[in-house]
Amino acid sequence: MPAFDYDLFVIGGGSGGVRSGRLAAAMGKKVAIAEEFRYGGTCVIRGCVPKKLYVYAAQFHEHFEDAAGFGWGVGETRFDWKKLVAAKEQEITRLEGLYRKGLDNAGAEILNTRAVLTGPHSVRLAADDRLVTAERIMIATGGHPTPHRDLPGHELCITSNEAFDLPELPKSILIAGGGYIAVEFANIFHGLGVDTTLIYRGKEILSRFDQDMRQGLHKAMTAKGIRILCEDLLQNVAADADGRRHVRTLKGEDLVVDQVMLALGRVPNTTDLGLEAAGVETDARGAIVVDAYSRTNVPGIFAIGDVTDRVQLTPVAIHEAMCFIETEFRGRPTSPDHDLIPTAVFSQPEIGTVGMSEEAAAKAYSEIEVYRAEFRPMKATLSGRQERMIMKIVVNAEDRRVLGVHVLGHDAGEMAQLLGIALKAGCTKDDFDRTMAVHPTAAEELVTMYQPSYRVSNGQRL
Amino acid sequence: MPAFDYDLFVIGGGSGGVRSGRLAAAMGKKVAIAEEFRYGGTCVIRGCVPKKLYVYAAQFHEHFEDAAGFGWGVGETRFDWKKLVAAKEQEITRLEGLYRKGLDNAGAEILNTRAVLTGPHSVRLAADDRLVTAERIMIATGGHPTPHRDLPGHELCITSNEAFDLPELPKSILIAGGGYIAVEFANIFHGLGVDTTLIYRGKEILSRFDQDMRQGLHKAMTAKGIRILCEDLLQNVAADADGRRHVRTLKGEDLVVDQVMLALGRVPNTTDLGLEAAGVETDARGAIVVDAYSRTNVPGIFAIGDVTDRVQLTPVAIHEAMCFIETEFRGRPTSPDHDLIPTAVFSQPEIGTVGMSEEAAAKAYSEIEVYRAEFRPMKATLSGRQERMIMKIVVNAEDRRVLGVHVLGHDAGEMAQLLGIALKAGCTKDDFDRTMAVHPTAAEELVTMYQPSYRVSNGQRL
Repeated sequence: MPAFDYDLFVIGGGSGGVRSGRLAAAMGKKVAIAEEFRYGGTCVIRGCVPKKLYVYAAQFHEHFEDAAGFGWGVGETRFDWKKLVAAKEQEITRLEGLYRKGLDNAGAEILNTRAVLTGPHSVRLAADDRLVTAERIMIATGGHPTPHRDLPGHELCITSNEAFDLPELPKSILIAGGGYIAVEFANIFHGLGVDTTLIYRGKEILSRFDQDMRQGLHKAMTAKGIRILCEDLLQNVAADADGRRHVRTLKGEDLVVDQVMLALGRVPNTTDLGLEAAGVETDARGAIVVDAYSRTNVPGIFAIGDVTDRVQLTPVAIHEAMCFIETEFRGRPTSPDHDLIPTAVFSQPEIGTVGMSEEAAAKAYSEIEVYRAEFRPMKATLSGRQERMIMKIVVNAEDRRVLGVHVLGHDAGEMAQLLGIALKAGCTKDDFDRTMAVHPTAAEELVTMYQPSYRVSNGQRL
Repeated sequence: MPAFDYDLFVIGGGSGGVRSGRLAAAMGKKVAIAEEFRYGGTCVIRGCVPKKLYVYAAQFHEHFEDAAGFGWGVGETRFDWKKLVAAKEQEITRLEGLYRKGLDNAGAEILNTRAVLTGPHSVRLAADDRLVTAERIMIATGGHPTPHRDLPGHELCITSNEAFDLPELPKSILIAGGGYIAVEFANIFHGLGVDTTLIYRGKEILSRFDQDMRQGLHKAMTAKGIRILCEDLLQNVAADADGRRHVRTLKGEDLVVDQVMLALGRVPNTTDLGLEAAGVETDARGAIVVDAYSRTNVPGIFAIGDVTDRVQLTPVAIHEAMCFIETEFRGRPTSPDHDLIPTAVFSQPEIGTVGMSEEAAAKAYSEIEVYRAEFRPMKATLSGRQERMIMKIVVNAEDRRVLGVHVLGHDAGEMAQLLGIALKAGCTKDDFDRTMAVHPTAAEELVTMYQPSYRVSNGQRL
């Protein structure tokens, strides 16, 4: 008789949890996975996937406008929010089914319940108040948007969780936050015809991104009609009789909008999870503390993905899951590699980026070369759209290694993915220079900037 | 008194010629450049640039159709060919002006005339029947579509030269050829609402491309309504009283269409250029023979770009021009690098490719691994468009080096550009595997195919 009910018990049916459970089960391990909401997690249910679908939806009005310059006449267009929500719902339900099917095919037991730790090897299933044991427990419960309880009126606000399923498309929205979620939703709502304002306490949106990307996107968003209030923040939110929101900002602005969305950061889902009972350590932000192999302080208990607050990205959670499997079940200790992660902001224009910003590189290296191009994309010449594409390559002057590449414009996310390979492989600027251009593309600019635009030496721009 | 009128005389105002002339002039050399038609050459005037603009125009009907799945209702749309032609004309005129301005700013003398060699260092300017001399002469006269004079009725056909400026958009067109020009125009005309047929004598379109790309595109084109006749060719073209074309094919098909377009290859522009007078050698196809430094057999006479029939691509001509300048004027002998040139076919779906096809790699290496993914792009899930994306990575099993990457689908051209860097740098499959995914993108598929789909060992698929 085995000592435990399961070889692996996974808490959380998101990207990291499902990958852990599926891979272990496919190896013949006895696996159960518990999810209290919907399989697929933030990514599938209320993150990456619905977001990208809404981004596509938000881009059509530009296609309609651009068409005229290419000889097309387009009749009246109208947008039906409910249709989009329903189509999105159908698609994420399909994906949820695929996640379940993958687990099922691999032989994992799928539980639809909240699961709470009761000890280092035991979990209570809330649905039927049953206790099960496991040799290893994986906590992959993810995170959720901060409700920002300090804000008077916070209960009148929505977060990204609710934004996808609003019963009506608001006529106006105020979005608080300057991170990629705030910025993406601002672009989505604006693209769907909503009067959109962004408020952010920082000096410029998207902190830690390259300054050119931040300013370039800010400018582009403002130009198309999104109002951006930097260095200001919400002080109070109230509702009027019509259900509209009255907002007071720190600087004294009074705004009346249909919805206020808070995108002020995400919090790890570690409350009421039984961490204390099991003795699992968390940090000041409530994130589970793990070592380089995703091990918590309690032997047999592991954590991956957003609940550990390392890098909150789906592919990172999946990567951590695969490393966990290699380490624990295949005898090949593998530590997740969090270096040089390419990312995208699916704003319009998009940002794609990998590696260091100019600012970070200038601090880390004594001399850097910056190759910078700003141009009007070819499509905009006929559409007449006022749109600039910005591309930047940051190079260590000493050994010519490319430290970072940043792209603002169409397809920047696709570009970042493939630039990621080059940077991960340690490519130099000479490798870029040796590459023949593909004409006409936007990306060819990245291989035809032969002379640096400027240098930064000991922090001074030359 | 200098021995020659000019340090460099450039014949041909296309991409290669203009780059040569501009760079040499910017160095202080005495330069003249002669062009009999329009500055910008094939690329700007009747190649890459207008082609890409027309590709954009041809994509709008898909945007209009896709919109419904995302909640958009679109009124009646109509297309006005003359507006597109006029907008294109305005843009290429602008670009032509930029080419001239670049030359002018650098101090080159811009001549609007045909120029004919009269000896190793002398050129006759046809416009004013004037003879000038130059220390070095660069021939960059490009090429033109073959008129296919063997075809009875060829004079009733158009080529890509005329296709951009047809007075009316035809209701139907037959395009002869299976290369990228034929394929791109078939997609453009179809996208603008023209009943389109492609006829090609080969077994499959796009010879030398990877078989999956060829078949995948063929299937996609057929699915959207383009008729493709392979292993057949034009036997005779005649006109009827209404101006329509009656076509007989070798296999006996009779077709009646508004226009017949020949895209059966391109011929170097070497006729009546005075090559015999100067003693410049050409090959059987009429291309100027050059060595690894773009030198003809006549000292002091050079040739670059399409007239040399090496690789007929704009960036290659520009690269050859830059190598020529390095070699001849900067004392750094530099031979053009024609290896691993990434390219794109701007069909819909697009093809982006760099390196070896599976077929070529299987011949060149004893064992290869093929990583292949075929999937429905995310946008198509809501648009309902029947569309498959295909991605392939071909790897040398022995050392894991990536030999080729092939993409069919949206943004494939942009992807090929950046994959080009990775392949040029000699990246291995492990470099791809080490790269974190950017989610949700299409390109992430290229870094998440961990297991080979199959192997080919000594030509046998395993």
